[in-house]
Amino acid sequence: MGETGKEEYKIQSFDSETQKLLKTALKDPSNVDLEKVANIIVDQSLKDSVFSKEAGRICYTIIQAESKQVGQSIFRRSLLNRLQQEYKDREELRSRSLQAWICYVTFICNIFDYLRVNNMPMMALVNPVYDCLFRLAQPDSLQKEEEVSCCLLSCQGPVKSTAWGVHRSLHCFVLSHLLFLLKVDCLVLQLHRIGEQLEKMNSQRMDELFSLLRDGFLLQEGLSSLSQLLLLEIIEFRAAEWKMTDAAQKYYYSEVTD
Amino acid sequence: MGETGKEEYKIQSFDSETQKLLKTALKDPSNVDLEKVANIIVDQSLKDSVFSKEAGRICYTIIQAESKQVGQSIFRRSLLNRLQQEYKDREELRSRSLQAWICYVTFICNIFDYLRVNNMPMMALVNPVYDCLFRLAQPDSLQKEEEVSCCLLSCQGPVKSTAWGVHRSLHCFVLSHLLFLLKVDCLVLQLHRIGEQLEKMNSQRMDELFSLLRDGFLLQEGLSSLSQLLLLEIIEFRAAEWKMTDAAQKYYYSEVTD
Repeated sequence: MGETGKEEYKIQSFDSETQKLLKTALKDPSNVDLEKVANIIVDQSLKDSVFSKEAGRICYTIIQAESKQVGQSIFRRSLLNRLQQEYKDREELRSRSLQAWICYVTFICNIFDYLRVNNMPMMALVNPVYDCLFRLAQPDSLQKEEEVSCCLLSCQGPVKSTAWGVHRSLHCFVLSHLLFLLKVDCLVLQLHRIGEQLEKMNSQRMDELFSLLRDGFLLQEGLSSLSQLLLLEIIEFRAAEWKMTDAAQKYYYSEVTD
Repeated sequence: MGETGKEEYKIQSFDSETQKLLKTALKDPSNVDLEKVANIIVDQSLKDSVFSKEAGRICYTIIQAESKQVGQSIFRRSLLNRLQQEYKDREELRSRSLQAWICYVTFICNIFDYLRVNNMPMMALVNPVYDCLFRLAQPDSLQKEEEVSCCLLSCQGPVKSTAWGVHRSLHCFVLSHLLFLLKVDCLVLQLHRIGEQLEKMNSQRMDELFSLLRDGFLLQEGLSSLSQLLLLEIIEFRAAEWKMTDAAQKYYYSEVTD
């Protein structure tokens, strides 16, 4: 499957009218409202975790096409404006929906990865991206999530019986751990993809981020084994200068044989 | 303080007659019983954790002096024979005294570090040294130590009261954690000193050892924060090709400032 095939795959989750709009934006950008297109892409990224991981490529293609066809950057400006707006309101977004917030982090990191100026990442995105990753790494997050999910559940109605109470507590527990894992997973995935470039742009903040990760690892109680595994792997990965040693590859990614 | 000053320091813990013997061995080795000297050094190493960390240097000096003076290697042969004997009986040594066992590991690693053939570590020591480090890293150790120390304490007499029982349990708990920390500390110290050379001699066993350390880290319950810190630090240290990055140095070895 070639480049075009891949682009089409990403668009399939939209309705047919939007698909048509996006296809035009990719091939003939001067004929569509590019601000609208930017908003459609950001809106979808905040809802769809798969799309948020790949949206950088489609944005890059539209930017290239617009620059080639009309020598302008309306799409790029609209995209960055919208990203900045969401960045400003990130705490609101986060409290409204943890999943949307994780999608946002994934999306902004993907944009950081794809949008380049003279083959360098965009300086303006460095600090927003770091801020998002720091927020994901914050050690108080596990407890907060627990509170949030418990609150959510307690809104569903009064306790009906002890068994129901126990069931709800268990639900809280599982949910809070899943949410936490989702965040660690997102953090680690982003660091795998853009950690090296990000460190080149500002190594001091990367040092601080990894201090936070080590703290989380060493001091945070109740981390699941899987979260610990993900964190240990990224700590080793960075120590080896963002490379995977053969031994680490074998340890973390081979199936258990015995 | 020069070389001689350092050697004299190490000898000061012996009685005056032994000090005289060791001084002669260092300067005029043909005039003393070098097998006896080797045994004295090993015996002291098994008792004295400070001496076991530095004994390699005195052994190296005696070997050089003997080779220069008479072109022989009686001391070296006696030393290695005795090391091999203790290696064969290591499980007995370990069950007799955990501290003596830790001293032995420290000593054999120190000998591995100092005794060289054509500026290469001695091939014959590679596997014994690995075996010792694997033994220290074994994940079942914490529990076993707990059993051992509890057994030891229960031999001291019958339980006198509940308070006494609680006190004894607490004593068991603290003791077992201290013993475990002692082992992790020894393991990490040795890996800092000889890990890189050891890996060069046999990288596969080093991979296996680090798999065990990661397992210990991820799967072992009840690890103290300090043990975790030591293990995480050595895992990062090896991932960075046995070097300490500035950021890791700052994280692990700087005093907390805020």
